[in-house]
Amino acid sequence: MKADNSPPRGNRDLLPAATAVRDHVFSTIKDVYAKYGYARIETPALEDITRLTGGQGGENEKLIYQVLKRGLEEPITAQSARELVDLGLRFDLTVPLTRFYGNNHATLGTPFRSFQFGPVWRAERPQKGRYRQFYQCDIDLIGEQSVLAEAELIEATTEAIKAVGLADVTVRLSDRRFLSALAEGVGVPAEAWNTFFIGLDKLDKIGWDGVRAELVDSRGLPASAVDSARERIESLGGLGADKIGQALADALPGMPEEVIADLATTTACVDALGDVRWEFDPTLVRGMGYYTGQIFELHHPASAGSVGGGGRYDGLIGRTLGRDVPACGFSIGFERIVDLLGAEPKQDNIAVLFETDTPLPLVLQATRDLRERGHGATAIRRSGKFGAQLTRLETAGYTRFTALKADSDPAALEIRPLG
Amino acid sequence: MKADNSPPRGNRDLLPAATAVRDHVFSTIKDVYAKYGYARIETPALEDITRLTGGQGGENEKLIYQVLKRGLEEPITAQSARELVDLGLRFDLTVPLTRFYGNNHATLGTPFRSFQFGPVWRAERPQKGRYRQFYQCDIDLIGEQSVLAEAELIEATTEAIKAVGLADVTVRLSDRRFLSALAEGVGVPAEAWNTFFIGLDKLDKIGWDGVRAELVDSRGLPASAVDSARERIESLGGLGADKIGQALADALPGMPEEVIADLATTTACVDALGDVRWEFDPTLVRGMGYYTGQIFELHHPASAGSVGGGGRYDGLIGRTLGRDVPACGFSIGFERIVDLLGAEPKQDNIAVLFETDTPLPLVLQATRDLRERGHGATAIRRSGKFGAQLTRLETAGYTRFTALKADSDPAALEIRPLG
Repeated sequence: MKADNSPPRGNRDLLPAATAVRDHVFSTIKDVYAKYGYARIETPALEDITRLTGGQGGENEKLIYQVLKRGLEEPITAQSARELVDLGLRFDLTVPLTRFYGNNHATLGTPFRSFQFGPVWRAERPQKGRYRQFYQCDIDLIGEQSVLAEAELIEATTEAIKAVGLADVTVRLSDRRFLSALAEGVGVPAEAWNTFFIGLDKLDKIGWDGVRAELVDSRGLPASAVDSARERIESLGGLGADKIGQALADALPGMPEEVIADLATTTACVDALGDVRWEFDPTLVRGMGYYTGQIFELHHPASAGSVGGGGRYDGLIGRTLGRDVPACGFSIGFERIVDLLGAEPKQDNIAVLFETDTPLPLVLQATRDLRERGHGATAIRRSGKFGAQLTRLETAGYTRFTALKADSDPAALEIRPLG
Repeated sequence: MKADNSPPRGNRDLLPAATAVRDHVFSTIKDVYAKYGYARIETPALEDITRLTGGQGGENEKLIYQVLKRGLEEPITAQSARELVDLGLRFDLTVPLTRFYGNNHATLGTPFRSFQFGPVWRAERPQKGRYRQFYQCDIDLIGEQSVLAEAELIEATTEAIKAVGLADVTVRLSDRRFLSALAEGVGVPAEAWNTFFIGLDKLDKIGWDGVRAELVDSRGLPASAVDSARERIESLGGLGADKIGQALADALPGMPEEVIADLATTTACVDALGDVRWEFDPTLVRGMGYYTGQIFELHHPASAGSVGGGGRYDGLIGRTLGRDVPACGFSIGFERIVDLLGAEPKQDNIAVLFETDTPLPLVLQATRDLRERGHGATAIRRSGKFGAQLTRLETAGYTRFTALKADSDPAALEIRPLG
C-alpha cells in the first residue's frame, strides 16, 4: 500500500536543485559578512514558551508551535493549553538573539557582530510561496551607539545581495524619531501614535484616501493631523543627501538636530559606495514596535516586497540583559532572494556508466581515478536503452559521462559530453 | 532586573568559536560527498506524529517533542496527549528520508544519492556533552542492490573524515545475514533472535560472562546456543580479506554464499584504498531493527564510541513507497567529530581601531579600502586603555590591528601584529 508521503501541511521538501541555490546564497552572504567581522552564532530551535510570549513578537506570538510538556500524567486534567506546554518553536531570530546576548555577553565582548541563519516556524494560513518553516538571515551589531552601525549594516548587506547576483538595489531609509516628531508636530495625540504609524505603513497599498478613511473615519484621529502629515510627507520626496537635512528641518521644526545629523551621515556613507541608490521614505514604518532610531529596507525591481530590512532597537537588549545596550540589525529576505534567483538542476560530476558484469573494485577504482584527476565522478549502473539513460542523466543535470566495461583500462576512459 | 537567559534545559547556545569548527566540518564533508555525487536534500523539522510513532524509530519514539494542535478550544476536554497533538520534531534523519523518497522518487530518479545535514531533537535526560537538539549528517544511496553501495559509502565517508582532520580510522564490518545465520546455526529459537542480537551488542561493555548471564539466566536462551556462538565468534577474529570467506564458511556451514561473496567484495574494495584499516567484527549489531545486510562502523583511537556507522536497509523504503527499493546509508557522528576537533576563537580580520572624533565616512572608507585589498576588516571604536583594548582584541581572536585617526590617510594605514 502506498501511503501519503507529503510533508505536514504548509511544509515542504527541498530537492537538490533547490538546496544548491540556497547553499550558494547562504555561503555567499556568510562570506561577505565574515569580511566585515560578523561571526555566525546559533541558538536552539526551542525556547521557553514564556519568553516567546513576552510581547516582543507582536502578531507572530499568535502563530507559535507549542510543545507539550514531557511526562504528562494521563488522564489529562488541565483545561488550558498554557498548562500543557512549556516550550515553543522560535518564530524569529531576534527574540533568541536578545536571550543569547543576555546569556553570553561576558564572553562575547562589545561591540558584538552577530550573523544568524536558520529556520523559524509560524503556523500561518498556508498560501502560495509561503511556508510554515522558513529561513531567516539576520545580522546585528550590538554595542555601537553611532550610525556607524546603520551605515555598516547597509554597506555589508547591499554588498552581500549584489554578490548573490542581484545588482540594482535601492535603500529606503527613515527614522522612528522622525515619525515621532511628525506625529507630535501634526497633533496626533500621544496615545494614538501607534495607530497613526500602522495606518501610515499601509500607504503603499491603500493610498492617502485609504489612510485618511482608516485613521480619521474609523480610528477618530483629527482630520487636520492626517492632512498636515500628508502635506509634510509630500514635501520630503526625492531629495538627495545634500538637501534632506534642510527639508526635514523646514517640514518639522521640532525635530531633534541629532536625527537630521544622523540621516546626513548615513546617507553620505551610502553615497560614498557609489553604486547604491537610496531614498528617504517618510512613510516607511517597519512592523515591529521595538525600533528606536533609523529604519531601512532594501528593494529590488524584480520583487514587489522588500528583499531585506532592519533598524535600530536600542531598548531591546536591556529587557533581557538588565541594562540598555545600543543595537542595530538587518534581516535579509533569504526566501525571497532564493525565489528571485530560481533553481536549476546541475551536476558537475562525470557519470561513470558501468555494465552489470564490471567488477565492483574496478568501478570504484575508475571513479576514484577521475576524482584524483580533479573531477567529480559518480558510478551509475547501466540500465535500459543506452540513449534513454543518457537522456535521463541529462535531465538530472549531468553534462558528461564515460562508459566502463569489464575490460576497460580505468586510466584511459574517454569522457564524452551528454546531449 | 536581569532575567535568566539560559536556553531551555538540555539545549545550548553556539558561540562563534564553536560555529567556526562546525561550519568547517560540515563544508568539508559536504564537498567530499559532492565529488561522489551526493546532493543535499532537506526535509522539515516537523513530521506528522503518526509517522514518527510508526515503530521505525525504536526507543527514540519515546523521546519525541510533541506539538500541540493549533486552535484547540478551551476548556480542553481531551484526556490523552495523543488527542492533543498532531505533529512532532524529528528524532532522526532516516524516517524523514523514507518519507521524502516516497514523496519525490518520480523526480529524483534511481539510483539516488542523498546527503542530509540538520538538527534532530530527543527529550533525553540531560548529561555532559549530550544535548536535546543535535545535528546528524547522513548519506544514503537508494536504488543500488549490490555492495557497490556499501563500498562507495565506506570510501566516501573515510575520505570525508580524513579531510576533516581525523586520519587513522578503522572500519568495523559485519552483516545482519551473518548474525541471522549464526543465531540459526547455534540454535537460538527464531522468536528470540532479536533478544540474542541485543545481548551480543553489549559484549564490548559487559564481556562474555555478562552476555551469558543476560541471555541464559535472565532471558532463558539455551546455554549451549550462547556457548556455541562464543566459540564461533572467537574463531573469526583478526582475519584478512583473503581468509575471512573460508573462515566464515567453516564457522557457519549454513551461511548463504552470497553473504561471503559480498563481504569479500567490500573488504577487497576497502583494501584497495590502501590507507584504511578494516576488521570483521562478528559482535557488531547496530541498534536499529531495519538493517538487512552489511553493517559497519568507523572508529578512531581518540573516541571511545564510533565516529560513524550505517548499513543496508532494503526493506525500509518499501514501507512508505509501497514497493521495495534497495538502500544503504552511513551516518557520520557529527557532534562527536566536532568534540574531537575542539574549538579555538579565530578572527582573520584586521581590527580598525578608530577614535571617537574620526568622521564615520572615513572609518567606513578605511575599512572598505582594506577589504578591497583582500583583507577582512572590522571597525572597532577605541575605548579604555590602549594596551588593555589590544589584549581584549587578542582574546577575541584578532591577530592584527591598525589605528585610525581623524587626520589619517586611509590609503597609508600601518597594519601591526597584536601581542
